[in-house]
Amino acid sequence: MTQYFNEEDACKLEEILRNRRDVRGNNFSDEPVSEEEVHRILDAALTAPSVGYSQPWKFVVIRDIDTRKQIQKSFLAENDKARDLFKDAKAEKYSKLKLEGIVEAPVNIAVFYIPSDEPVLGQTTMKQMGEYSVVCAIQNMWLMARAMNIGVGWVSILDPDKVADILDAPKNHRLIGYLCLGRVKEFLPEPELETLKWNRRLNKSTVLFYEKFKP
Amino acid sequence: MTQYFNEEDACKLEEILRNRRDVRGNNFSDEPVSEEEVHRILDAALTAPSVGYSQPWKFVVIRDIDTRKQIQKSFLAENDKARDLFKDAKAEKYSKLKLEGIVEAPVNIAVFYIPSDEPVLGQTTMKQMGEYSVVCAIQNMWLMARAMNIGVGWVSILDPDKVADILDAPKNHRLIGYLCLGRVKEFLPEPELETLKWNRRLNKSTVLFYEKFKP
Repeated sequence: MTQYFNEEDACKLEEILRNRRDVRGNNFSDEPVSEEEVHRILDAALTAPSVGYSQPWKFVVIRDIDTRKQIQKSFLAENDKARDLFKDAKAEKYSKLKLEGIVEAPVNIAVFYIPSDEPVLGQTTMKQMGEYSVVCAIQNMWLMARAMNIGVGWVSILDPDKVADILDAPKNHRLIGYLCLGRVKEFLPEPELETLKWNRRLNKSTVLFYEKFKP
Repeated sequence: MTQYFNEEDACKLEEILRNRRDVRGNNFSDEPVSEEEVHRILDAALTAPSVGYSQPWKFVVIRDIDTRKQIQKSFLAENDKARDLFKDAKAEKYSKLKLEGIVEAPVNIAVFYIPSDEPVLGQTTMKQMGEYSVVCAIQNMWLMARAMNIGVGWVSILDPDKVADILDAPKNHRLIGYLCLGRVKEFLPEPELETLKWNRRLNKSTVLFYEKFKP
């Protein structure tokens, strides 16, 4: 029996989508996140689409503070390198930004992609489809957490091989995303990088094309 | 003012996540999808997270049947190559599968990633973060469409360069996803590839680890 959703449901989803934020260490509270809550968020991941129904994902739930401090070291090293890439006003802005909450958030989740040794249906031409499936799972987690009023921050300024090493990951496992989860002081009304004028919101008309790029 | 969601909202999101399906040509109806509906789905894409708030996406909405037939040709060529990779029982199963709905669905949307010439905050170490942002936008569209009872199929058996050529995409634009959108005869109760025993659902305990991979 097909489940049909109504206008109210669609509006509710829009609210969740619109109110999702990337949360950093300056905004996590120290309220705990329970094991049941973590499982509910992981269950959302497992409903994600995956290419050829390959489900090529693994999740490591990290609460241990020593492990998180080791991972934070990788962030600090990579962030030092990153800072040098920005010039003038951007460089000054960059160094003031808080870009992760590895230690402030009570739970971290590392999400890995495991390549298959066999051909995967749907991944024979576009090889990145396996990774993309893992990203869909991460987006599901992010939205589910938001509906539970739990904040998520995706930390990408990390050496994926270092993180894999720290977590004793088997050789073929590839880190796709590293998430910090926790309750928040507030969910900001708009993306922090918009408020801080790091970038401005693009107008839909500049990213939307009909039929072809050259009409 | 932070928007808080309640238990009913979280359950509604879970229902949408659980009932999302990949829809193929054997399941699209010929009911139209309006321009307003397409815009509502695109608006959901634009609320996706993007690395460094870079919004590195472009969307091409395709209704023209000649364009879609050209793209279907790329599918047919890639699918012929793919079929040969599967052996024995899998090969037989593979050739019976309907894997796209390019012509049957009334609307196709090609989603591109546009790399930046400048360094992007958060993308300095993990270079794929731009592509991953585009994937998050696709997952948002997929869920929004589902809440509107519109089916989406992601076609990945396509040569991305051929599709880019057909759509006159500028040289640096990279196809990430090609989506078929339309109303459906039904939303299947579980993924078709699960029903057909192509793959089975993985148990959560096999993909979930605590603290490290080796405890």
